[in-house]
Amino acid sequence: MPTFYGVDVESRLLLGTARYPSPAKLSEAVRQSETEIVTVSLRREAAGGRNGGAFFEMIRGLGVRVLPNTAGCHGVSEAVLTAKMAREVFATNWIKLEVIGNHDTLQPDVFGLVEAARILTGEGFEVFPYTTDDLVVAERLVEAGCKVLMPWCAPIGSAAGPLNPSALRAIRAHFPEVPLIVDAGIGRPSHATAVMEFGFDAVLLNTAVAGAGDPVAMASAFAKAIEAGRQAYEAGMLEPRDMAVPSTPVIGKAVFA
Amino acid sequence: MPTFYGVDVESRLLLGTARYPSPAKLSEAVRQSETEIVTVSLRREAAGGRNGGAFFEMIRGLGVRVLPNTAGCHGVSEAVLTAKMAREVFATNWIKLEVIGNHDTLQPDVFGLVEAARILTGEGFEVFPYTTDDLVVAERLVEAGCKVLMPWCAPIGSAAGPLNPSALRAIRAHFPEVPLIVDAGIGRPSHATAVMEFGFDAVLLNTAVAGAGDPVAMASAFAKAIEAGRQAYEAGMLEPRDMAVPSTPVIGKAVFA
Amino acid sequence: MPTFYGVDVESRLLLGTARYPSPAKLSEAVRQSETEIVTVSLRREAAGGRNGGAFFEMIRGLGVRVLPNTAGCHGVSEAVLTAKMAREVFATNWIKLEVIGNHDTLQPDVFGLVEAARILTGEGFEVFPYTTDDLVVAERLVEAGCKVLMPWCAPIGSAAGPLNPSALRAIRAHFPEVPLIVDAGIGRPSHATAVMEFGFDAVLLNTAVAGAGDPVAMASAFAKAIEAGRQAYEAGMLEPRDMAVPSTPVIGKAVFA
Amino acid sequence: MPTFYGVDVESRLLLGTARYPSPAKLSEAVRQSETEIVTVSLRREAAGGRNGGAFFEMIRGLGVRVLPNTAGCHGVSEAVLTAKMAREVFATNWIKLEVIGNHDTLQPDVFGLVEAARILTGEGFEVFPYTTDDLVVAERLVEAGCKVLMPWCAPIGSAAGPLNPSALRAIRAHFPEVPLIVDAGIGRPSHATAVMEFGFDAVLLNTAVAGAGDPVAMASAFAKAIEAGRQAYEAGMLEPRDMAVPSTPVIGKAVFA
Repeated sequence: MPTFYGVDVESRLLLGTARYPSPAKLSEAVRQSETEIVTVSLRREAAGGRNGGAFFEMIRGLGVRVLPNTAGCHGVSEAVLTAKMAREVFATNWIKLEVIGNHDTLQPDVFGLVEAARILTGEGFEVFPYTTDDLVVAERLVEAGCKVLMPWCAPIGSAAGPLNPSALRAIRAHFPEVPLIVDAGIGRPSHATAVMEFGFDAVLLNTAVAGAGDPVAMASAFAKAIEAGRQAYEAGMLEPRDMAVPSTPVIGKAVFA
Repeated sequence: MPTFYGVDVESRLLLGTARYPSPAKLSEAVRQSETEIVTVSLRREAAGGRNGGAFFEMIRGLGVRVLPNTAGCHGVSEAVLTAKMAREVFATNWIKLEVIGNHDTLQPDVFGLVEAARILTGEGFEVFPYTTDDLVVAERLVEAGCKVLMPWCAPIGSAAGPLNPSALRAIRAHFPEVPLIVDAGIGRPSHATAVMEFGFDAVLLNTAVAGAGDPVAMASAFAKAIEAGRQAYEAGMLEPRDMAVPSTPVIGKAVFA
Repeated sequence: MPTFYGVDVESRLLLGTARYPSPAKLSEAVRQSETEIVTVSLRREAAGGRNGGAFFEMIRGLGVRVLPNTAGCHGVSEAVLTAKMAREVFATNWIKLEVIGNHDTLQPDVFGLVEAARILTGEGFEVFPYTTDDLVVAERLVEAGCKVLMPWCAPIGSAAGPLNPSALRAIRAHFPEVPLIVDAGIGRPSHATAVMEFGFDAVLLNTAVAGAGDPVAMASAFAKAIEAGRQAYEAGMLEPRDMAVPSTPVIGKAVFA
Repeated sequence: MPTFYGVDVESRLLLGTARYPSPAKLSEAVRQSETEIVTVSLRREAAGGRNGGAFFEMIRGLGVRVLPNTAGCHGVSEAVLTAKMAREVFATNWIKLEVIGNHDTLQPDVFGLVEAARILTGEGFEVFPYTTDDLVVAERLVEAGCKVLMPWCAPIGSAAGPLNPSALRAIRAHFPEVPLIVDAGIGRPSHATAVMEFGFDAVLLNTAVAGAGDPVAMASAFAKAIEAGRQAYEAGMLEPRDMAVPSTPVIGKAVFA
């Protein structure tokens, strides 16, 4: 059972709330998958000019914990301001911190990220930083007061799955006691199972579920896939063996002489 | 719900019965994972000199359908003979047909396999052939009367996972109506999820479960992983996108001039 | 220096002769890359109704050894007949034997391949069989009298590169003394370098060169890539190391407590 | 022909000078591979207490351009100081800037790297920064005055090859006019060919050559592999095609009904 800033949860699946075909589908996906934490984009939703409006009401009505995010923020001050608005709207110190550094890849600006994290932890926020798979950046975030890390496994919306398993495994090995959530880049359940097998604590998804043919069924599929990966990690898996090179003298080799 | 030779099953996980730490663990693994079909090696078990003996009793006692196999048979006549013994012992026409062609990789001898399949279907057997990922061999097996195919995804016991996804996907695409079970080479749940996402109908496992630190938990993990993969296949997954090449004009490119 | 049926060659690059923008480009590609062996499709070229015609004249004029092939043949008798025609046209016992088993993948029909190989070696042909990466099939081809093997690394024209390195390495390990040529599926020079690093003796290419923007330059690139791979294989390469798990106690780990 | 800070070179291979079996082997490797630029670790060599000593003499005697590096420096001030020493010793403004952030992975500390780069370019250095595959960090380095970038493809000494081709390709796409040199992680020539096919301008190697069974032959193999990759990039390669899904109606499908 993972613990994020003192909060124990059963479910290792976190869901984003954007781009669903309808609020009903979102609601049903959350319910069917037994998700306990959802992220909400303050900036995207507030852009409709209705802070505290219908969308936020609906989210509150889901009966799950809300992790507001700063999606779409491109600078430190914008991200900090958005975090503060989020605290008002959702009455929580939790914030998923995104400081975007590139329009195409939507990848973190690790410089702005560490700076914003430092400011926000200083103001009492409990920061969930959306970061890259860079170990040294991870160390800086921990030094800045983050007690959870959220590395990507591929660009947001790419559905590419873990592009650099070695880097993800290195982060896990170097931070045995920090809760780690893979955030962004997961496209299908096998990707989620794989990162859980690396020992990650949870997975955050949005597009892979919201954009599926049947988002409700897909949320449920991911929930099972994530449980499976965790259970396998704890049960002790076999290491793969290279069987290309014969272990015994080759039978009948003389035939080819 | 897949159908194998007219038999409908709920569970898409098939388990082998060799190399468990104890009969109790095997029994519990089958129960926990809700497996409905187990394979049993006639040749291995009979080598103890006790046909119909204690091991077979125990297997019958599991309350699941038995798929006897010809594991370890290296020639057509040996495989055919073993299949006939299996029919006596387990009172079933089902046979998982293995004709081993190489001591190291334990891979099928596709020549002997097709020949043995033809003989056995001619004698009323319902053959589940353990084969490679070769499409043309698959066609020959179907011509020989096989109504289920069991391609490997990697050598038995390698735990390497799908070594050639392209070949597996080609088999799926060319045989849309033949039940396909991946047999051999799966090492961890993410491998099983992945092949189910390709559209396979089921997965057969042995070492990955029997050799796990906790075989019972691992069987359960695989059951969930396989369900997840199937559900995702049916729910409609996103295709991965290559985001390495920018979709929009690069902002600030002039800076680098 | 590899030896094919008693013939020593310097160059480890073999080129197909189909689909070049012009005979001049083909000729220049052969010359620039210092290729010593080219394959020619009897069936394709003869389909123009002009056996021994202009195309064959041009090929003979290249001053390199010709390896006629049975490309496009779908059955044993068609392949054997084509091989015999080739012997007449090019006055050579060499034949690249293709027996195609599938319209889409253009992959070998391994059953027909072994049968045709047996017939042809019995009639004095020196057979270069185009085969899959199946070790057991490779053994049958050697038993049928083949003294060279030509496994594919991916479907013809896919440009996908080595789809199953493990299977290719297994073939190399099991046949340390049989000359092995990778035939089909290579798309770019790095693919060719990689298979040479596995210890293969040579590479046969067609589409990757003929279909390149500049076929002459591409032929030259492949020639260098193949030399590089061979030289590396002989010079002794480092094995990759997994550095994800720290080798030393993690410095400053206490920080994260 | 790439240009680094106004200097045109023919060879796209740069070699490190550490860990060779002997100075004679190093010298011969440089000569045989026609390398025009070598890197030298000030800190490692000076640790012998003999700045300007025998090793530096030997390097100067190679007759190639020297790119001093700050290998082993863990902080900004240490790196800056080492760079200044290097300028004295080798009378060059060129510096390969390494600011190491982790003992295990020897990966860059991107925070220290950008800061040191800014300081050094301000003092007239021409900086070659050893960096990760992070696009946003690359932008900061360019803003800091770097006119060449040297991303890693895997941890130093891992010989793992390009772990994240997507990230490398993204850097190439976003910086079409900045010379890009892959530095660290290359293990075998096929890795070097692959990154050159992505459009990189050059490759810097050390362990893969110095630690090879025959370093001189290996240096020569890499030189060819790198040329091959570049030539292919310029000649226009085929894109791989997915052939798993049939392009034509499946022949004989009715058989399986």
